[in-house]
Amino acid sequence: MRMIDLNSDLGESFGAWRMGDDSAMLDVVSSANVACGFHAGDPAGILRTLRAAAERGIAIGAHVGYRDLVGFGRRNMDPNSEELIGDVIYQIGALQGLATAAGTRVTYVKPHGALYNTIAFDTRQASDVIAAILAVDASLALVALAGSPLVAQAKAAGLTVVAEAFADRGYTAEGALVSRREAGAVLHDPDMIAKRMVRLVQDGVVEAIDGTLTKIDAQSICVHGDSPGAVAIAQRLRSALEEAGIAIGACAGAAG
Amino acid sequence: MRMIDLNSDLGESFGAWRMGDDSAMLDVVSSANVACGFHAGDPAGILRTLRAAAERGIAIGAHVGYRDLVGFGRRNMDPNSEELIGDVIYQIGALQGLATAAGTRVTYVKPHGALYNTIAFDTRQASDVIAAILAVDASLALVALAGSPLVAQAKAAGLTVVAEAFADRGYTAEGALVSRREAGAVLHDPDMIAKRMVRLVQDGVVEAIDGTLTKIDAQSICVHGDSPGAVAIAQRLRSALEEAGIAIGACAGAAG
Amino acid sequence: MRMIDLNSDLGESFGAWRMGDDSAMLDVVSSANVACGFHAGDPAGILRTLRAAAERGIAIGAHVGYRDLVGFGRRNMDPNSEELIGDVIYQIGALQGLATAAGTRVTYVKPHGALYNTIAFDTRQASDVIAAILAVDASLALVALAGSPLVAQAKAAGLTVVAEAFADRGYTAEGALVSRREAGAVLHDPDMIAKRMVRLVQDGVVEAIDGTLTKIDAQSICVHGDSPGAVAIAQRLRSALEEAGIAIGACAGAAG
Amino acid sequence: MRMIDLNSDLGESFGAWRMGDDSAMLDVVSSANVACGFHAGDPAGILRTLRAAAERGIAIGAHVGYRDLVGFGRRNMDPNSEELIGDVIYQIGALQGLATAAGTRVTYVKPHGALYNTIAFDTRQASDVIAAILAVDASLALVALAGSPLVAQAKAAGLTVVAEAFADRGYTAEGALVSRREAGAVLHDPDMIAKRMVRLVQDGVVEAIDGTLTKIDAQSICVHGDSPGAVAIAQRLRSALEEAGIAIGACAGAAG
Repeated sequence: MRMIDLNSDLGESFGAWRMGDDSAMLDVVSSANVACGFHAGDPAGILRTLRAAAERGIAIGAHVGYRDLVGFGRRNMDPNSEELIGDVIYQIGALQGLATAAGTRVTYVKPHGALYNTIAFDTRQASDVIAAILAVDASLALVALAGSPLVAQAKAAGLTVVAEAFADRGYTAEGALVSRREAGAVLHDPDMIAKRMVRLVQDGVVEAIDGTLTKIDAQSICVHGDSPGAVAIAQRLRSALEEAGIAIGACAGAAG
Repeated sequence: MRMIDLNSDLGESFGAWRMGDDSAMLDVVSSANVACGFHAGDPAGILRTLRAAAERGIAIGAHVGYRDLVGFGRRNMDPNSEELIGDVIYQIGALQGLATAAGTRVTYVKPHGALYNTIAFDTRQASDVIAAILAVDASLALVALAGSPLVAQAKAAGLTVVAEAFADRGYTAEGALVSRREAGAVLHDPDMIAKRMVRLVQDGVVEAIDGTLTKIDAQSICVHGDSPGAVAIAQRLRSALEEAGIAIGACAGAAG
Repeated sequence: MRMIDLNSDLGESFGAWRMGDDSAMLDVVSSANVACGFHAGDPAGILRTLRAAAERGIAIGAHVGYRDLVGFGRRNMDPNSEELIGDVIYQIGALQGLATAAGTRVTYVKPHGALYNTIAFDTRQASDVIAAILAVDASLALVALAGSPLVAQAKAAGLTVVAEAFADRGYTAEGALVSRREAGAVLHDPDMIAKRMVRLVQDGVVEAIDGTLTKIDAQSICVHGDSPGAVAIAQRLRSALEEAGIAIGACAGAAG
Repeated sequence: MRMIDLNSDLGESFGAWRMGDDSAMLDVVSSANVACGFHAGDPAGILRTLRAAAERGIAIGAHVGYRDLVGFGRRNMDPNSEELIGDVIYQIGALQGLATAAGTRVTYVKPHGALYNTIAFDTRQASDVIAAILAVDASLALVALAGSPLVAQAKAAGLTVVAEAFADRGYTAEGALVSRREAGAVLHDPDMIAKRMVRLVQDGVVEAIDGTLTKIDAQSICVHGDSPGAVAIAQRLRSALEEAGIAIGACAGAAG
């Protein structure tokens, strides 16, 4: 039986400010990328999300980001290696502490936003993130953009890598994401998205924007939950996968 | 042979701003209360301090505080229980992560500043801090003000408690600290401070401001390192203790 | 013709996090209490709100708060006078700069959350806020809780004071707000709220929770916009006031 | 009589953390670049610096930076235009408010750290900073790196520009700063520094690292005060300028 992981960004509220529908998404995904306080997430809110994830047996990932609350971690920054290594260790450790308190544990790391995009191709910052993970717990998997140089770099460093595809993004014939500045970058049709992802799991390919089939080697699919429409897309995708006989399960070791 | 722990607040620099002489103090103390980022301490700087402490085999404590960088955690705040529990867990976890990366581990918790003073007497906030420690790692000791209600409260909750005295503070006949608003609150004479602390370890008493002897049940002595004068006092104290045949050693389990 | 000011808290989004429906509320109120970045509000978002307020000729107030983003300025703090004076001046100045850029100007100050509640009765923090306003621009009015000691304190210091009532709060026979820990503290029925406030403007009284009429001397009414229900209450109140022949207008001088 | 402005970065302490010797530097410079809270500076500390500057009649500049306390504004960031414009207006406004309270006023803007370096050459971010200044007060001068494209860009936009040289930096034959990664980037000899700057004011040239003379058109010289050695260099420079009959005075209009 085929299996795929579904992951989503959760725990992104901050104090009085709400973001996303964590409860709905925890019923869809197998892996929760939980904010660690640098781009989003306050400790009390993170703990609530972790407890809800623990109840459902969902795998927990540290969604580490740049230290930029007002920019939500989406702005490029250039911390030096000492800073970036420290920041990533700090965030993983903080989430590990909260996960322990919630009766679960962190099994993977998924960088967020600008850090995610940067380390997919920037080997210096990538090596800092890898070094941070190795320094805290070398058994933590790293979720990385399928097809990016980071996948090989992290594997070569000894990490378990989970390559991920994006459910609602268009792909080029080369297997890269279509730039958000171009048409076709973001997909909105739940049925089309579901059909594409079923095909990805079954055949390892997606239809690129030029109509050709491109190979994507992914063990996880990222879905969003930051709007009612996004939640509906994620729910539709889960149903379609299950109807196709594909099991939904975490790559990176569910807790417990 | 008698033994006493010497502890000090370290890792309190923040980014470009320096504070204290961590290197000098690590040669004096047996336990390092390391800032966790909420009142002071950035991850890269904390990691440097932890590595230096690990080299010397010094015990590591999580110096958790209120989330108030500009106030250095010295201003009273009233977080609710959910917030305070989350904040304390988060800080302990973050320091545990960094300690792992530095090849050491956290063995105790010492609240900082306004949080320290508040939980000595405020049972609600005290119970939140205790709950946070129990939720992360019940084997972590809690450093508490000798003679305060917190000592019994934390013991009743199952925590190992290390009661501490302050080397440079005056005491009332009842064994409380002389208020900083009154004369005699802070002592400056290195020889007198050293003599008082040797007596404390040997006889369990200090001379109060009214000249009477007051019993203080303390397993650790807090020394400061935030000025050249403070470092000299700490060094003098260590020498005096050793000359009196008193061993300096951590209560809360050195790492490794 | 009778006149009353309607004020509401606006500009409280922060980066990626949205809060409230500023656009809807700007069509209801005559005065906008705009967040200044310490409890909420990022500069770009504040500027958008100011521009929308300027288009409608709505009066702008500096909604100054404690420096506590994660607690949304709702937690008690005890900054010393130097800190509090500095923080209030800084926030007023920042908003003045943004208001100038938006083609409008700040005409009053309304403290937020815990600071608002504290200075209603704490004369030391109140005098700090008053000193800050006098130091930046003595012509800025201060919005204060009707019936609180602050009203007289600020007038005695030479400030113009706008006393305010809360549309959706219960009052005691003594003219104080019913504590949020007691029944009857918050009102939810739009029609009843509207009727009470029309009576307040016409007769200067509200019915207290014990059924007696209590005198409230208020020149402004605070309405909330942080939920669809709250917006509807505010809209209903405006309509009721207008139907009763009461003009809605800012006390503290509309801009321009 | 020839005249030159001396400027320095001040008000860079933050809460309990001290930085620089503002008092000593205020006796050396004619213009104080005062931190505005985003890269350094808390309101109470900024106000103290402003009062000390006001007593001496020194010109006040808004030392605006990226929102990055832990990185001290020295790390590159890519805020979008809306964010950067808002951030710069906010900081200028905040400092204007504090300056008013200190009995002085802001007469110029000098971007700090990474923002300074970026806008010297990045026209997009430069135009955002220029737009922000124009939106708050078009009479504020902009201090810019002598020889950089920013000088012409800001003048074309209608701003008064003060081009500045750096006392302790080496220059290339093209009039650019020697990169900090290369030898000769930073000068340490107080006498040589003083002599170079006297020549700059008298003849408009400095000796470049290749020994040639390069023209530098500067109306202000930046000196540092972040170490005892730096203060001594600044003092030596001031004496040398005065001995050469050169007056020290602000370009951008002293307050009052």
